[in-house]
Amino acid sequence: MRQRHKPWAEDFLKDATDLVISNPQDIKGKWQTQFGNDRPIHLEIGTGKGQFIATMASQYPEINFIGIDQGKSIIATAGSKVRDAGCENVLLILTNATVLDDLFTENEIAAIYLNFSDPWPKKRHAKRRLTYYTFLKQYQHLLQPKGEIVLKTDNQNLFAYSLVSFSQYGLVLNDVNLDLHNSDAPENVMTEYEERFAAKGQPIYRCKAQFV
Amino acid sequence: MRQRHKPWAEDFLKDATDLVISNPQDIKGKWQTQFGNDRPIHLEIGTGKGQFIATMASQYPEINFIGIDQGKSIIATAGSKVRDAGCENVLLILTNATVLDDLFTENEIAAIYLNFSDPWPKKRHAKRRLTYYTFLKQYQHLLQPKGEIVLKTDNQNLFAYSLVSFSQYGLVLNDVNLDLHNSDAPENVMTEYEERFAAKGQPIYRCKAQFV
Repeated sequence: MRQRHKPWAEDFLKDATDLVISNPQDIKGKWQTQFGNDRPIHLEIGTGKGQFIATMASQYPEINFIGIDQGKSIIATAGSKVRDAGCENVLLILTNATVLDDLFTENEIAAIYLNFSDPWPKKRHAKRRLTYYTFLKQYQHLLQPKGEIVLKTDNQNLFAYSLVSFSQYGLVLNDVNLDLHNSDAPENVMTEYEERFAAKGQPIYRCKAQFV
Repeated sequence: MRQRHKPWAEDFLKDATDLVISNPQDIKGKWQTQFGNDRPIHLEIGTGKGQFIATMASQYPEINFIGIDQGKSIIATAGSKVRDAGCENVLLILTNATVLDDLFTENEIAAIYLNFSDPWPKKRHAKRRLTYYTFLKQYQHLLQPKGEIVLKTDNQNLFAYSLVSFSQYGLVLNDVNLDLHNSDAPENVMTEYEERFAAKGQPIYRCKAQFV
């Protein structure tokens, strides 16, 4: 989705350089230092409006969270939400998922969340899906050994594709849920999109896949 | 389901010993000889009323099919359907899946079908599910290297459980379909149960998992 130009977003980003990191390449390998502690770092790829990361950060103060997204106003909206929640264990980056190797060094991340990623339904766009093997290769590099990917989506085809892609890359599935909101699954922090979508009664899929 | 006593079934089984094998332990390791050729053997565990195996055998004359089920009248019904279809590439066995090691030797089977297996929904019955790891161990033994399991079910929880069980055992998922009857999936031969169930518009799940 093309973001409309929002002057407040520009202003927010200029003002919030402690929260939305403008020079992430320089911090590669030093993210724990940036957080000021040695807690594990979880990365959300596609943070959207920030409800997931802000809620997770509040619920899990013992974890550091980094959220990335590629629209200025979307990342400013997320930043604003994180600031309102008063979380100090969140950093945001205005970037996309193709350059992760430039931002993180080996073993720097403990877990990755892929929330409602673009399904890229056309076969010829498969390589843009965030669970295509080239992305998995990047995740494997920056994740610690036995690092986990948690994927959540409403898109049936993306989910089925991702299960196969994970499996064929060598990840092990630790959990598969085919109707998250109608199951006994414990904790689930919802994204803005998920709340709207779930209200229609359609299933949300989730899986946890681990590098071995 | 407890089968009602049906005298015709007893009579059928007595009469059809060339089709419903009464001494399968004696044929362990010699199933191709029994078929009279060296074609690959596919095994359906839980053949039910036989529509799947009879249709598959007609469509794939270059493959030998063995179906097992544990009710006399159900296996007689399947036998009757196979006979009506005129298939010579099918053998049936009245048995259950816990004794597969007694019936087949290493590498004797090329593929296994699990169609609408009992979901055993209670956690304490998990070990009875046909995708519990003790069953996978049996399948691995009797399947050829890179042998495949094709699982089809309408039960969401059994499907999710099975994906995880396959993955954690080390099988690779080659295909996952979360709504088989509303997808572009090519060939699908339906069971009797599947036809009735699908008519209600509820999803049928299918996956193909391969030993590596």
